[in-house]
Amino acid sequence: MVDPRVYDAMTKSVVGCMDPFFFEMLDQIRPMLRRAFGTQNEITLAVSGTGSAGMETAVANFVEPGSKFGVFANGFFAERLAEMGRRQGAVVVRLEKPWGEVFSEEEAAGFVRGEKPDVVAFVHAETSTGALQDPHAITRAARETGALVIADTVTSLGAIPVAMDETGIDIAYSCSQKGLSCPPGLAPLSASPRAMERLQARKSPMHEWYLDLRLLAEYYDGRKYHHTASASLFYALHEGLRVIDEEGLGNRFDRHWRSHRALVKGIEGLGLCMHVAEGHRIPNVNVVRVPDGVSDIEVRKHLRDKYGIDILGGLGVLAGKVFRIGLMGPLANDDCVRMFLDAFGDALRAASQ
Amino acid sequence: MVDPRVYDAMTKSVVGCMDPFFFEMLDQIRPMLRRAFGTQNEITLAVSGTGSAGMETAVANFVEPGSKFGVFANGFFAERLAEMGRRQGAVVVRLEKPWGEVFSEEEAAGFVRGEKPDVVAFVHAETSTGALQDPHAITRAARETGALVIADTVTSLGAIPVAMDETGIDIAYSCSQKGLSCPPGLAPLSASPRAMERLQARKSPMHEWYLDLRLLAEYYDGRKYHHTASASLFYALHEGLRVIDEEGLGNRFDRHWRSHRALVKGIEGLGLCMHVAEGHRIPNVNVVRVPDGVSDIEVRKHLRDKYGIDILGGLGVLAGKVFRIGLMGPLANDDCVRMFLDAFGDALRAASQ
Repeated sequence: MVDPRVYDAMTKSVVGCMDPFFFEMLDQIRPMLRRAFGTQNEITLAVSGTGSAGMETAVANFVEPGSKFGVFANGFFAERLAEMGRRQGAVVVRLEKPWGEVFSEEEAAGFVRGEKPDVVAFVHAETSTGALQDPHAITRAARETGALVIADTVTSLGAIPVAMDETGIDIAYSCSQKGLSCPPGLAPLSASPRAMERLQARKSPMHEWYLDLRLLAEYYDGRKYHHTASASLFYALHEGLRVIDEEGLGNRFDRHWRSHRALVKGIEGLGLCMHVAEGHRIPNVNVVRVPDGVSDIEVRKHLRDKYGIDILGGLGVLAGKVFRIGLMGPLANDDCVRMFLDAFGDALRAASQ
Repeated sequence: MVDPRVYDAMTKSVVGCMDPFFFEMLDQIRPMLRRAFGTQNEITLAVSGTGSAGMETAVANFVEPGSKFGVFANGFFAERLAEMGRRQGAVVVRLEKPWGEVFSEEEAAGFVRGEKPDVVAFVHAETSTGALQDPHAITRAARETGALVIADTVTSLGAIPVAMDETGIDIAYSCSQKGLSCPPGLAPLSASPRAMERLQARKSPMHEWYLDLRLLAEYYDGRKYHHTASASLFYALHEGLRVIDEEGLGNRFDRHWRSHRALVKGIEGLGLCMHVAEGHRIPNVNVVRVPDGVSDIEVRKHLRDKYGIDILGGLGVLAGKVFRIGLMGPLANDDCVRMFLDAFGDALRAASQ
């Protein structure tokens, strides 16, 4: 759900990507993004594409042909990371876990010590499974061998702390439409000085031009023309970040956790099970197992047709096995949770009859 | 300038990229884009990025590593095409002409026969010089040797005929913010069946995932999830294309030519010279030589501060030597031309004093 103020912002007149007014807005967006990422990284910007463009920016810039890329594979988007690594010509090594489980520090350390990847990547909040990975488990292991750490924060940024600097994540990317509650189309990204040093020393040429982070940095910092950034999407991001700043990130994170706890209580009250073990759940994407004998498609259709509520089904190996219930941004409040639980209970009853 | 109806369209509620309503809208957008491109190509869609992402989609998909890529180099964006070809690992060969001139069929044929490139690329309407390249000159030469033809139609689509099928262009890409008068952020692209056959037979893996045209086609045609396309930008494109359809493409093209002729007459009346020879000019980007002794920066500043009118300076080798005057979409009308000429005359006088 997008705040009405954000929609309004998009009706402002489009200006050019080299307009001083546009650069001033970018200069205001960047510190707000830094706060959301929990970082002081100078290179914090928004890529002109969706979250997947953010992912590709991270992989294409930092994973060189012939290098070793370690992927913590426990969900749909980790597979996408691995695929992008292969396309860059890297040797991709994987540590697998069932979808919905997370990696312990010991598991991560064993993998990183054994494989010694140049770069590792993990998904902070895996929207396909509902599992929240503790970044420390990965970053501590990676620091031992000097591997750069890429974190997919597509579902976490703006809803739960990413805390890049504290956790030691080197590169994080996200999207505009989840925790930031803006329209999709931009991919916030931040890279540590250590990551940028590695990038400056990169020897093999970048295949990608549109997502070349050095060129993007020259546009943001050097005001050198690169591409025609979409004024409308940046107006929206600017206003969406202001809405978040006004609430305060801490308050916003707390609100997501409160709604999550109320939702889980209600879900369990309906006799259903959460897919992920307690303590490892994402608050803003709640993954619930489909009870035996119930068609997830019917439940979702009932919710949509009778209540206008959209929830998602499972992806990949979880297709047909789980519901994925988003509870983000303005929707993360008690009234929405109550309303949803009533509707969900009704839909489950209707689909079980 | 963006039509107010297009701004309004962006305030509609964001829906998911897999929502049936969203696919219905895509299904309405595609025939409108086909009309603008002048093609029956099934693969006609909008890439989720700016015009440069469209350019990279064309180059990264169709120019394979080790293949020969022929670039008709007579302006800023041809240089970008060549750079992207090099990044894909192609052998880039160039036919050069001074910025502002165009290629004749004989020149193109000599180059194509001599070099036998697998793919050639040219810029239809080069916004950095104001020169309009006749596509036939390139496509006839390319057909002789079987080379695929990529056309940059960033500045032409929606303002002048592209006529892909008639001219024999295989791949054309554009942007949303010029001739289509929408906000930037999307890159319409169309590829011929011949081009898609070549792509299906491609042996080397694609480096790029976000701009992989085969994956994009599976999303558009097979409704297979790829990336979270920006509902807001597609609402805008949908409404912008409807505005164009209501006027009629033929009427729109005529209107751009009429305004162009009126502007050129006025410019020459002020004693200034057009940079490009008559008969080879883009109607919607008018490139005018800066008179001796006049500072282009001062003229542009005067126009902006006193009249709120933005015109562009020269790019690359033409920096400081030309003004670039956009006259597109709703702005291409007699009143705007008159108003602009008065303001421009005033600014030139002020800057000459």
